[in-house]
Amino acid sequence: MFEQMTPFSMPQGDWPEFPPGMVWLLGAGPGDPGLMTLHGLNALRQADVVVYDALVDERLLEWARPGADREYAGKRGGKPSPKQRDISLRLVELARAGKRVLRLKGGDPFVFGRGGEEAQTLVAEGVPIRVTPGVSAGIGGLAYAGVPVTHRDVNQAVTFLTGHDQTGETPAAVNWDAIAKGSPVIVIYMAMKHLDRIAQRLIDGGKPADEPVAIVSEATLPTQRVLETTLAHAAADAAEAGIGAPAIVCVGRVALMRQTLDWMAQLQGEPPRSLDPLGARGTSRAEAS
Amino acid sequence: MFEQMTPFSMPQGDWPEFPPGMVWLLGAGPGDPGLMTLHGLNALRQADVVVYDALVDERLLEWARPGADREYAGKRGGKPSPKQRDISLRLVELARAGKRVLRLKGGDPFVFGRGGEEAQTLVAEGVPIRVTPGVSAGIGGLAYAGVPVTHRDVNQAVTFLTGHDQTGETPAAVNWDAIAKGSPVIVIYMAMKHLDRIAQRLIDGGKPADEPVAIVSEATLPTQRVLETTLAHAAADAAEAGIGAPAIVCVGRVALMRQTLDWMAQLQGEPPRSLDPLGARGTSRAEAS
Repeated sequence: MFEQMTPFSMPQGDWPEFPPGMVWLLGAGPGDPGLMTLHGLNALRQADVVVYDALVDERLLEWARPGADREYAGKRGGKPSPKQRDISLRLVELARAGKRVLRLKGGDPFVFGRGGEEAQTLVAEGVPIRVTPGVSAGIGGLAYAGVPVTHRDVNQAVTFLTGHDQTGETPAAVNWDAIAKGSPVIVIYMAMKHLDRIAQRLIDGGKPADEPVAIVSEATLPTQRVLETTLAHAAADAAEAGIGAPAIVCVGRVALMRQTLDWMAQLQGEPPRSLDPLGARGTSRAEAS
Repeated sequence: MFEQMTPFSMPQGDWPEFPPGMVWLLGAGPGDPGLMTLHGLNALRQADVVVYDALVDERLLEWARPGADREYAGKRGGKPSPKQRDISLRLVELARAGKRVLRLKGGDPFVFGRGGEEAQTLVAEGVPIRVTPGVSAGIGGLAYAGVPVTHRDVNQAVTFLTGHDQTGETPAAVNWDAIAKGSPVIVIYMAMKHLDRIAQRLIDGGKPADEPVAIVSEATLPTQRVLETTLAHAAADAAEAGIGAPAIVCVGRVALMRQTLDWMAQLQGEPPRSLDPLGARGTSRAEAS
């Protein structure tokens, strides 16, 4: 096992220094600690306090500098959680106290993570910031399920959307018809609460009822589960399987690629279920140039 | 400077072993080596051969195990480059020779990177694979320019699309009207070649001619340049500024956030140009809950 080998060092290089009084807004990736970036590890090793979300894996926090404080600032649908404004003001307060404040958010801070708003408040309050992106769950979480968000034979566009807005309702501002027509692949964050309604709106907008769907819960974690279904049956199948939030929902024919690309199952010895899930013509064209 | 401190070690843990004969398909991120994941560093330190793309920064290759081979398999628009099928078959050949083959792709391998096709060929040929996502340039590259791809006051959906298809032309399969109507924010990869035509199609589809646009070339690298313009003027302004590929184009009001969130300029001492680029109502609502 690799873990019994000598631990390897971070490469030498001009790693950013984390000055006191700064808030470093950083994406922790979808869950697997190995998807943290090197900048992220560097920041963790210097931070005085780590303010983290519900979706940040606890194992990452163990990599913080010994003695660093950890503050939970999670928000999760349906449960009482700190208000966004309170989180932002707490970051300001910690920075003004001269702390190196690492704001650690699951996935990427600028993808439905409200990181833009937090950063805006910090800048308005005169707090210096640094921003480091992370692997977003809608891309990386699906990759762990063997689903590529793009495939040349399926889509030249992919739309990411959030399943509920600030009121907790299906986003009123989303033009479901246009998205159904314009996007061969749709990746939905925070979809589980309103999955039945979202699926119906996409079908009403022109998506086939039997459009392939993959639902990935606890993506990239040892507890990851994947449900393969169709748009019409997605909500009922998820309920029956007991699959809930947090989950990423992928609507589109790329979901079929899991039949070939479920590399995690294959590493456990399972053979691929299909070598040509998109149909022979697609595959031959795919490798033609 | 942090670089004069003791180099820090990778955390202890159950890091995956890279067995001979495997191809590990891995996203290197948009350019800044610090955006490589810990899984990526682990893979680099074990690989026998690294097969890398044009968009992979050379500094990353220096982190490979001493003695590892490096093979360039870049594809870039307009220049002669290996055919996709030849790249895939080369990966098969190296794996069958018992090498630990690291296939290192810029950004994320499953976002317009043809990683899904490569993986499909490898599985069909019986070669074991592992897949590790990376930070995609359309998210991480824009973050380095101070542009969040989502902001609660602008969009609950964002569409990523590629600016040319396998023929090199504007993608014929893209429903430009629907995307213009459905997506308040559109992020375009490989957009520079056909930027004039793409902008016109989006305007024809209903986007305002003065829709804000940010163009980020060589994103996250020391050579990064950012152009702020509008949809109608994007192509001409980019030509005048001499901004070419590789670049990410962001169409939508989130591009205005750069006026507040250009953290790289602020770290150099520049003040923010605006604290309220989306308008006061937007900002107050943003922090209301």
